[in-house]
Amino acid sequence: MSAKITLYDIPGRVAGGAWSPSTWKTRYALNFKGIPFDTIWVEFPDIEAISRKLGTLPTSHRNGKPRYTLPAIHDPNTSTPLAESALIAEYLDSAYPDTPKLFPPGTRPLQYAFIDAFMSHLDALWQFTTPATHAILNPPSQAHVRRTREVAFGRKLEEIAPTGAAAEEEWAKVKSGLEIVAGWQDKGKNDGSFFLGKEPVFVDFAVASFLMFMKKIWGEDSSQWRDISSWSGGRWGTLLKALEKYETAL
Amino acid sequence: MSAKITLYDIPGRVAGGAWSPSTWKTRYALNFKGIPFDTIWVEFPDIEAISRKLGTLPTSHRNGKPRYTLPAIHDPNTSTPLAESALIAEYLDSAYPDTPKLFPPGTRPLQYAFIDAFMSHLDALWQFTTPATHAILNPPSQAHVRRTREVAFGRKLEEIAPTGAAAEEEWAKVKSGLEIVAGWQDKGKNDGSFFLGKEPVFVDFAVASFLMFMKKIWGEDSSQWRDISSWSGGRWGTLLKALEKYETAL
Repeated sequence: MSAKITLYDIPGRVAGGAWSPSTWKTRYALNFKGIPFDTIWVEFPDIEAISRKLGTLPTSHRNGKPRYTLPAIHDPNTSTPLAESALIAEYLDSAYPDTPKLFPPGTRPLQYAFIDAFMSHLDALWQFTTPATHAILNPPSQAHVRRTREVAFGRKLEEIAPTGAAAEEEWAKVKSGLEIVAGWQDKGKNDGSFFLGKEPVFVDFAVASFLMFMKKIWGEDSSQWRDISSWSGGRWGTLLKALEKYETAL
Repeated sequence: MSAKITLYDIPGRVAGGAWSPSTWKTRYALNFKGIPFDTIWVEFPDIEAISRKLGTLPTSHRNGKPRYTLPAIHDPNTSTPLAESALIAEYLDSAYPDTPKLFPPGTRPLQYAFIDAFMSHLDALWQFTTPATHAILNPPSQAHVRRTREVAFGRKLEEIAPTGAAAEEEWAKVKSGLEIVAGWQDKGKNDGSFFLGKEPVFVDFAVASFLMFMKKIWGEDSSQWRDISSWSGGRWGTLLKALEKYETAL
């Protein structure tokens, strides 16, 4: 098993190119396991055609229509095409059993429930991140994001982010959401600095991937990232720092 | 440490008296650990006064006013009064270290996140359970539940449960919510029949407590319980059966 895996990712005009919270989970996963990979960069409008060609399954259906998303990988060692970050993590655990586990035995139900709960507390975030994401994309992906997000939000891209007092209120909701996550983390503070103790697992990389996304789209020196990395005792910056060695392939 | 713990519970006109999903968590916890206890039954209007006398803390605040809830315990062996089922479980793990763990080391953050996610998928349930709960309470608690729930729902108790097509739609949401939980459980099916593997932990008893609540307020022969216990391959009835030995003190 020595041929490199291919990771399909969405390019952005940020350092290193990777910004998507979904694909970061797989990027972290591969680096955490020390599995070599190459990246193929795919613009949003090309994801479906490339996924079909690759042979990955749609990750959801909307109004009866299949939706294809990234990350996807192709593992030439087992001739496996696969989409969706949690499924990819499960696959890597099983296909590369001598690498560190993202889902230690017995933890899958709780890690999936964690992801569900975590995502439910990010509801207020997307109105802020959508225009910022659009801003760092290449033109073909920009057009795609504008079209799909304007339908989803029911308003022009330029009107998605709240302003004035509403912006403050909504940003406070982002903060409270992350404070709930910090509360769960505090419950384990005597067991280690990660959610399951001394070693990071899938949920740590999932949380880190969303933080990375915020850091990438707004930039390290933005007021947004300065806010986020100061919340709950500065722990979110600390978490990224702790996982920094898994940002790039060794 | 041989004196019996006192469990403060809310009485209902059901077999055994216990129906509350919150207090069932502690009932299960004590039995799982084999810790002897006696029950003191408290009607809703008396909870605050008894909690203050006992010295437990309010479990939340609403409009700046403290809210006291059950379960609460008093442990005469350590002179500890304590409210809130998860905190009680943590306390029992720590005060009785030789008993089986509800929160095995490293699992607290994920178990708390699980509870958060689990509760978020029960949103459609309360409109159905509120009138059924009212029906099995004693008159002093009935008056309390009617008053507080009518304020919370903004309509008469008799109008809280949906009817006709709306009832079918809302009941389908209850089903989908529990199907999501079943999906998490399936992720661990190779590791054991409980959420964390071969032995039940706090989240198993939490899920079981809500199932027990539904079974108690509607009755085993109700159409509601027949529905619920048939969903997702009949697993909810199976879970209660698997934990049946922890329903009553040994």
